[in-house]
Amino acid sequence: MSSTFKAAVVHTFGDELTVDELEIPTPGPGQALVKLISSGVCHTDLHAAQGDWPVKPKLPLVPGHEGVGTVVALGEGVTDVAIGEVIGNAWLWSACGTCEYCRTGWETLCESQQNGGYGVDGSFGEYMLVDTKFAARVPEGADPYEVAPVLCAGVTVYKGLKQTEVRPGEWVVISGIGGLGHIAVQYAVAMGMRVAAVDVADEKLALAKKHGAEVTVNAFAEDPAEAIQKATGGAHGVLVTAVHPAAFGQAIGMTRRGGTIVFNGLPPGDFPAPIFDIVLKGLTIRGSIVGTRQDLEEALDFYARGLIHPTFHTRDLEEINQVFDEMHHAKIDGRVVIKY
Amino acid sequence: MSSTFKAAVVHTFGDELTVDELEIPTPGPGQALVKLISSGVCHTDLHAAQGDWPVKPKLPLVPGHEGVGTVVALGEGVTDVAIGEVIGNAWLWSACGTCEYCRTGWETLCESQQNGGYGVDGSFGEYMLVDTKFAARVPEGADPYEVAPVLCAGVTVYKGLKQTEVRPGEWVVISGIGGLGHIAVQYAVAMGMRVAAVDVADEKLALAKKHGAEVTVNAFAEDPAEAIQKATGGAHGVLVTAVHPAAFGQAIGMTRRGGTIVFNGLPPGDFPAPIFDIVLKGLTIRGSIVGTRQDLEEALDFYARGLIHPTFHTRDLEEINQVFDEMHHAKIDGRVVIKY
Amino acid sequence: MSSTFKAAVVHTFGDELTVDELEIPTPGPGQALVKLISSGVCHTDLHAAQGDWPVKPKLPLVPGHEGVGTVVALGEGVTDVAIGEVIGNAWLWSACGTCEYCRTGWETLCESQQNGGYGVDGSFGEYMLVDTKFAARVPEGADPYEVAPVLCAGVTVYKGLKQTEVRPGEWVVISGIGGLGHIAVQYAVAMGMRVAAVDVADEKLALAKKHGAEVTVNAFAEDPAEAIQKATGGAHGVLVTAVHPAAFGQAIGMTRRGGTIVFNGLPPGDFPAPIFDIVLKGLTIRGSIVGTRQDLEEALDFYARGLIHPTFHTRDLEEINQVFDEMHHAKIDGRVVIKY
Amino acid sequence: MSSTFKAAVVHTFGDELTVDELEIPTPGPGQALVKLISSGVCHTDLHAAQGDWPVKPKLPLVPGHEGVGTVVALGEGVTDVAIGEVIGNAWLWSACGTCEYCRTGWETLCESQQNGGYGVDGSFGEYMLVDTKFAARVPEGADPYEVAPVLCAGVTVYKGLKQTEVRPGEWVVISGIGGLGHIAVQYAVAMGMRVAAVDVADEKLALAKKHGAEVTVNAFAEDPAEAIQKATGGAHGVLVTAVHPAAFGQAIGMTRRGGTIVFNGLPPGDFPAPIFDIVLKGLTIRGSIVGTRQDLEEALDFYARGLIHPTFHTRDLEEINQVFDEMHHAKIDGRVVIKY
Repeated sequence: MSSTFKAAVVHTFGDELTVDELEIPTPGPGQALVKLISSGVCHTDLHAAQGDWPVKPKLPLVPGHEGVGTVVALGEGVTDVAIGEVIGNAWLWSACGTCEYCRTGWETLCESQQNGGYGVDGSFGEYMLVDTKFAARVPEGADPYEVAPVLCAGVTVYKGLKQTEVRPGEWVVISGIGGLGHIAVQYAVAMGMRVAAVDVADEKLALAKKHGAEVTVNAFAEDPAEAIQKATGGAHGVLVTAVHPAAFGQAIGMTRRGGTIVFNGLPPGDFPAPIFDIVLKGLTIRGSIVGTRQDLEEALDFYARGLIHPTFHTRDLEEINQVFDEMHHAKIDGRVVIKY
Repeated sequence: MSSTFKAAVVHTFGDELTVDELEIPTPGPGQALVKLISSGVCHTDLHAAQGDWPVKPKLPLVPGHEGVGTVVALGEGVTDVAIGEVIGNAWLWSACGTCEYCRTGWETLCESQQNGGYGVDGSFGEYMLVDTKFAARVPEGADPYEVAPVLCAGVTVYKGLKQTEVRPGEWVVISGIGGLGHIAVQYAVAMGMRVAAVDVADEKLALAKKHGAEVTVNAFAEDPAEAIQKATGGAHGVLVTAVHPAAFGQAIGMTRRGGTIVFNGLPPGDFPAPIFDIVLKGLTIRGSIVGTRQDLEEALDFYARGLIHPTFHTRDLEEINQVFDEMHHAKIDGRVVIKY
Repeated sequence: MSSTFKAAVVHTFGDELTVDELEIPTPGPGQALVKLISSGVCHTDLHAAQGDWPVKPKLPLVPGHEGVGTVVALGEGVTDVAIGEVIGNAWLWSACGTCEYCRTGWETLCESQQNGGYGVDGSFGEYMLVDTKFAARVPEGADPYEVAPVLCAGVTVYKGLKQTEVRPGEWVVISGIGGLGHIAVQYAVAMGMRVAAVDVADEKLALAKKHGAEVTVNAFAEDPAEAIQKATGGAHGVLVTAVHPAAFGQAIGMTRRGGTIVFNGLPPGDFPAPIFDIVLKGLTIRGSIVGTRQDLEEALDFYARGLIHPTFHTRDLEEINQVFDEMHHAKIDGRVVIKY
Repeated sequence: MSSTFKAAVVHTFGDELTVDELEIPTPGPGQALVKLISSGVCHTDLHAAQGDWPVKPKLPLVPGHEGVGTVVALGEGVTDVAIGEVIGNAWLWSACGTCEYCRTGWETLCESQQNGGYGVDGSFGEYMLVDTKFAARVPEGADPYEVAPVLCAGVTVYKGLKQTEVRPGEWVVISGIGGLGHIAVQYAVAMGMRVAAVDVADEKLALAKKHGAEVTVNAFAEDPAEAIQKATGGAHGVLVTAVHPAAFGQAIGMTRRGGTIVFNGLPPGDFPAPIFDIVLKGLTIRGSIVGTRQDLEEALDFYARGLIHPTFHTRDLEEINQVFDEMHHAKIDGRVVIKY
C-alpha cells in the first residue's frame, strides 16, 4: 500500500479543485480508514468549494459525503466494523452524543456535529477516515455506485417525507424531480403515499411516472397549484426539493388545509410567506436537513429491499471541475457518482 | 318582550356602523335565541367592518363573536341547551359535521363553516341566534364581562399554544402582549410552560410579569432574538400574536433548533422566511386559527378554575365606532367588552 | 314497490333467526332508505343473535352492518346522497356529533353512538335505513359483494394497523389470518409495512404469503414469539385478530422493545398481562374498535385503488342460521356475503 | 485520601449486606470518581439484594442508583465534568450510543445498557465511578439529600407522566402515594395536570392534597373506579405506582374512553387484562421504566425551580439492612436517603 493517495482538494473558495497526492491518514481511536470505491457528488459539495454558505468549511478541504468503500484499517478500540466491510461516510460525520438533540433522536441538529467533506475531509479521494459510530453500513450486495446517492440524497428525501407527516394513502407532491426529487418519488411510493410530481421538464416528469407518480404537472405548461388541487383535492404534504424561489409559493397553493410543506433544499435568500393563507389554512412549513443514523439505516433498508434505484452516471475524480460546472448549469440528470 | 332590538350594523365596508332597530329573529331548528349580556370586540370585527380580507362578510352585517347571554327561546328539536342557560357565540358559528376536517377534530378548517359576526349576524346587538351544537357553554359563576374575551381571544391563544407543541417545563415566547398576548401568558403559565414575553411597551411587559412571565424583553431596547437566546438557550416555541412584520423574523431568531413558531394573527402581506435558517435549524412554522369546540371547552375550563383573567374595559354599544377607532390606532389596553 | 320486505330477525337471544316479512320503513329526517344488494356477515352479528355481550342489542333485531345497496328514498332535508347512489351501512350507524369524542375525531368512542344491526336494524334484509351523515360512500365501480367486508372487517383492521403506529418499512405481525387477518395483511402491505403472518393453518398462511407477507409462522409447528424475533428482530407492532387467549401472550413475546400491540377482537375474558415484561420492554397495549367515517373513507379508497381483495363467498339470506353455525365452528374461510 | 472506602455489599442473594472496606477504584477513560454525600434507597435495590428478578445483578454488588456526590478524580479524556462538581449516578449508568433505541431517544430500552447498583457498583458506598456521559448533573444549590430521590423515583414518575400523554388541564390519577406516588403528584401539578390521588392510607392522601391533588380517594373506604368516574368524568390518564395487583384492574375502571394507563412499578406476576373493556373503550396500557438523560435533566430542572420536594429521612449506611427490612414491610414513608 502506497503512503499517499489521490484526492480532489479545495484550496481557495471559488477556484478550481486540484487533484493532489495526500498522505494516507492513520485512523485514530473510534475511527476506520476506508478505501473508496465510489462517491456521489452533491450540491453541497459545490457550496463547499464555493464557500458561499454562512458557515465556511475547513481549508484545504477534500469534499464528498456520499462515499462508499472498504475498511482497510481500524483505530484503537474499534469493534463495530471489521476490515473488509463495506461502509460509507455521511454528511453527519459525527455528533456529540450528549446534547439535548443527540439525547432525543435529533442528532442532525447537534451544534457540535462534524460534517463529512466540510468540517472534516470527505470522499473525493481514494481514502477517507470515518467515525465508526456514525459511518453508514452499506447493505450486502449493494451496487456501490447506485447506493452512493442514498447516503445523502436518499436519506435527505426519506427524512423529508417523514417530516411531511403524510400517511399511507394520502397525497404528497414532490416539487422538483432532479437529483433529490427522482429518489423522493421512489421513497414516497414505497411508503404507501400517493405521489404527484411537479417539474418544468417533461422527461423528468416521465421518470417520475415510471417510478410510480400518479399525477405529473409541468409547471411551465399549467398553473401547478391549480392542477394539483384539481387532481388531488389538495396535497396532504409537499416536499420541496426545487431550489427556485417560485417553488415555495406554489407549494402553499398546492396544499390542502392542515397540510405540511417541507423544505429540503438550502437555497440562499428569503421566501415570501403569505401569513394570511398559512393561518387560515392551518398550514405547517418545516425545514428538514439530511437524516440521523436511524433515518439512514432505514433509507438503506428500503434500498436493500430493491425499492430504490437512483439514476446515476459514473465519472472519474479528475473530471470533478467539469462535473461542478455541469451542476452549476443544471445539466445533470440524476446523480453523478465518482468511480475510483 | 319587544319585537325589535338594537344592534350595530355594517351597511357599507369602510363606513361607520349605525345602531339600528332590527326584528328579533325566530330560532330555526337546532338554534337558540340569546339575549346578550356582553360581547368582546375583536380585531376581526374591525376587518369585517372594513371588508379588507379576501373573503368578504355578508352585508348588512351585525359583527361580534365573543357574545355572552341568556337563552330566551329554542328552535325545533333543541334539547342540548335550556331556557335561562348562559351561553355564547363563537367565530366557529357552525361547521358541516361531515367533511374530512370535521371528522378528524379539525372543524376550524371546515370549508363550509359559518362564522359568527361575519357570515351570520353576531353579538353586536341585544339579541343573536346561535347553533346550539356550536354555542359556547359558559361556566357557572363566570363574570360575563371577563369571560367574553375567552370565547375568541382566549381559545385562539390556547389553541396556538397547543400548536407550538411546547411541553411543560419548556420555554415559550409570547411575542406581543396585547389583547391576545396578555391572555396567552396566563394560559402558558397554567399549562406548565416557562414564559418569556416580548413587546415594545414596558407596561405591557410588566403585566406579563405579573401573570407569571419569567423573562421580559423590550424589543425597542434590545435585540429580542439575542436576549431570548441568552435568557432561555433558545425558545422551544414562539407564539406570534404581534402583527408587525418584524415580529416574524425575530421569532425565527429566538427559536431553539427543532422549535416551532405559531402565527396567531392575520396580518396582510408576506413575511420573508429565511429558508437556509429554517432548514439548518429544523424549524417548524405553523398557522393557527381560533379553536374547535373542544379547544373552547378546555379554554373555558381553565377560566372556570380561576387561572385566566383577561384585562377588559366595558363600553356601550353606541361607542362601537369610537372603539374601532381606538383599535385602529392601537390604543386599546387588553380587551374592550360591550355591556348591554 | 311492495310494502313489505324479507329480513332475518332475531326474536330471542340464542334462538335461530327467522326470515320474516317486515314493513318497509319510511326514512326520517336525515335518513335514506337503501335497497340492499349485499351484506357481509360479521362475528359481531353472531354475538348480537346470541346476546352474549354485556350490552344487549334491541329485540326484535335485524342484524348486519356490512350492507351495500342503492338509495331508493330520501328523508326530509337529505342532500348529501342521491337516489340511485350506492351506499352502505356501518357498525357506527350514527354518533352524537357534539361530545368530546365526536369533537376530536374519535366518534367511535361516542357514548351516544347507535350501532348498525345492533341498536338499530341492519342489513340482513332487503331494505334498511341509514343516517346519511354516517353511511358509507361505496366507490364507483366497486364489486358490491367484494366491497361489503371492507365496511366493517376492512376498516377495523385498517384502523387497528394505524393504531399500531408502525411506520412504512417497519415490521408488523398479523396474528390470525381469518376474516379480519387476511384483509389486514393486504392493508399492511399497501401501507408500506413489512408483514409477518401467524396462524395455525398452513393454507391461511399461504394466503397471507400470496397477499405479500414476507414471513409466515405456523404457531402449532414452532414457537411463534421465537420465530418472529428471529425473522424480524422483534416486530414494531402486532395486530391481534385471533381470539384465542394464547395469541395475546404470544404477541408480547413477538414485540420489539418500545413496540405496540393492538387488540382488534372482542373475546370475552381476561388476558394475563405480564407487567414486568411490559414495563421493562416499554410496551404499549391498545384496544381498537372499528373506525370512524374518516377511517372508513380511507379504507374504501385503498379498495378503490385495487389494493384490497377480501376473500368472500356469497350465500342466500335464508342460509343465515347455517352460516352462523359454520362461523361458530370456525369453518368459514374469508368472509360470507349475503346476496339479495 | 485513604485507599479504601466503606460500602454496603451484597455477597449472596437473600443474605444481609455487609459493610466492607473496598479499594477506591481509579476512573477509566470517560469515567469520574465521585465521593458520595447521599444516596436514595430504591425498591430496586431490595430486588438486587434479593436477586429475585429474572435478570440477576453482578456479585458481589454495591447497590444504589440515587447517589449524589462530588467529583474527586477524572479518567482519561473527560472534559464534560470538573473536579469539585456535584453529580449523581442513575439506573441508566450507560448505554451503547449506537443501537436503534439510543439513536431515537429511547436509550432506556438499549439492550446493552449498564445499570447503576446492579450491573456496575453503585452508590451504597463512600465512593463510586460514573460514566460522565450519563452521570446526572445536580442543579446548583440543590439539597443533596432532598434531590437524591429525584435521580430515580423522580425521573421515573416524570417520564411515566409524559407517557400517559395527559395534557395540561386534563385529569390524571396517581394510584399509590408512596415513594414514587407522592413525587408524581408534585410533577403532575407542575405539568398543569389536574390530579386525583388514590391510596389506602388517609395520611398519604393528605400529603397528596397538600401537594395539590384536587381529588383524593381511599380505596378501602369506597370503590375507587366509581369515585374517580364521578369526580372527574373518567381520568384521561392513570399512573400506577402501586404494586398491589388490584390497582391494575381499578386503573382500567377509572379511565375515560381513549385514556392511557401507565405502569411504573415492576411487580412480579400477571395482571388480568379485560380485553373487551380495553377494546370497547379504546384504552392504551403502557409500561414505562425510569427515564433517559433528557428526562432526567428535565426532572431535575423542575426540582431546581422549587416545584418538587420529596419527603425523605436520612439514615446511616450501617442501617441498610434495617432499611431494607422496613421497606419489605412497607413501613417507609416517602424515601430513605443515606447520609455519608
